[in-house]
Amino acid sequence: MIGIFDSGVGGMTVARAIEHLCPDLPLVYFGDIARTPYGSKSPDTIIRYSRFNTDFLLEQGAKLIVVACNSASSAAADALRFHYSVPVLDVITPATIKAAELSGAGRIGIIGTRATVKSGIYPQRIREIRPDAKVFSQACPLLVPLVEEGWLNKRETKMILRGYLHPLRLKKIDTLVLGCTHYPLLKQLIGPRIGNQVRLIDSSVEMALHVQAYLDAHPELKERLRGKGGASRFYVSDCTEAVEQMAARIFGRPLELQTIAT
Amino acid sequence: MIGIFDSGVGGMTVARAIEHLCPDLPLVYFGDIARTPYGSKSPDTIIRYSRFNTDFLLEQGAKLIVVACNSASSAAADALRFHYSVPVLDVITPATIKAAELSGAGRIGIIGTRATVKSGIYPQRIREIRPDAKVFSQACPLLVPLVEEGWLNKRETKMILRGYLHPLRLKKIDTLVLGCTHYPLLKQLIGPRIGNQVRLIDSSVEMALHVQAYLDAHPELKERLRGKGGASRFYVSDCTEAVEQMAARIFGRPLELQTIAT
Repeated sequence: MIGIFDSGVGGMTVARAIEHLCPDLPLVYFGDIARTPYGSKSPDTIIRYSRFNTDFLLEQGAKLIVVACNSASSAAADALRFHYSVPVLDVITPATIKAAELSGAGRIGIIGTRATVKSGIYPQRIREIRPDAKVFSQACPLLVPLVEEGWLNKRETKMILRGYLHPLRLKKIDTLVLGCTHYPLLKQLIGPRIGNQVRLIDSSVEMALHVQAYLDAHPELKERLRGKGGASRFYVSDCTEAVEQMAARIFGRPLELQTIAT
Repeated sequence: MIGIFDSGVGGMTVARAIEHLCPDLPLVYFGDIARTPYGSKSPDTIIRYSRFNTDFLLEQGAKLIVVACNSASSAAADALRFHYSVPVLDVITPATIKAAELSGAGRIGIIGTRATVKSGIYPQRIREIRPDAKVFSQACPLLVPLVEEGWLNKRETKMILRGYLHPLRLKKIDTLVLGCTHYPLLKQLIGPRIGNQVRLIDSSVEMALHVQAYLDAHPELKERLRGKGGASRFYVSDCTEAVEQMAARIFGRPLELQTIAT
């Protein structure tokens, strides 16, 4: 199975995109709802939780680990690659490649959680691919709670978003990376506020394309994943009505969420 | 020592109030920053974490447990009292007594996290004391992230607060319980928006008065707490700069925070 973890339900945008592109490959998803959000935690804590999540997915039969959370990808992906022998794909790499490719003037904006922005990983990776790029980052810590409240079209959300995006507008960016799996749900609000000429990079979609490309490059792994058969399974470390509703909204269908204790 | 736990730093408003009233009694505080917020979690998860926190405080020498978190008090205080033999004081009881006492017309509003409001514990406790009371509850899930961002005087915070308080204004309440330890930091904004004639009950202050009254009623326990001597200690399950700043803002001095893994 393809193992996917996230700090919460946001990573389900990645799971849905992978399911869409690779419908014959079963997924096992783990959302660490009980300990969400990761974006405000220290790197040490994020690494410890990410190892727990990976151990769980491997026990469930995952042969490939997709880190669907930007905060976990920035703080823990290298530690996971060192510690485990299965391939670990992080959500940051594909978005940085796409941003470096698409940007005309090389003026790229990044929005993410505080942990993601503080790690500096997006600017670093983008400049590895495109040394002339100017990368401007903005932490948007209130967007995750607003999305989790379902406040996707509220006046307050628009105001807060305008405030966060204002410094990036001043920098005249031509490309903006939505560096958190919750943000694609705000795409309709972000576009007009950052300027409709700015290209938005949805890290969930890029991640799914990257998984597909990786499996095309490793047909033996793809075969092993397919060989197992079985249906996709979704686990969370805590479940409330709000979580079930959010999962159903993302997948467009009700999901059976199994709860495990962390 | 007096053991105090909270899901994060909010409970430090309780710790500070206790320190102010009982300056000769050492405290041991545990803030479960790594797993904050509790307000969106299920009762089972909150109980499991609350037991972990209590075990930790008892290991540190606590002889009295103060549950400074409203969400933990509503979901877990009864389970803790069943499981442990030390006295467990919850933050809800003193606020409900005060509200029932103070309210003229018996029209009482409660604001809190989703977990606290969903538990229904405030209306239930208030009506036990004052059966004629009409209690109106409002979940305010975005206030904790706004306070943790330090957005204490922002236009967006005022708008969101006005929206949350509007239904309670319509109910013509005369007393409002600030049912979350973060909310006293918003007192200046809440007053004019709910109406200056409405009395605000600060659960942190009431909790500290309750601890003082409890110890006056149990002088042998007070003597044991004092006898131990030693300085107050503050533990957290994760520490970032934002946490240190928030702790310093609440206490009015920098605190030495020790980190333990959960």
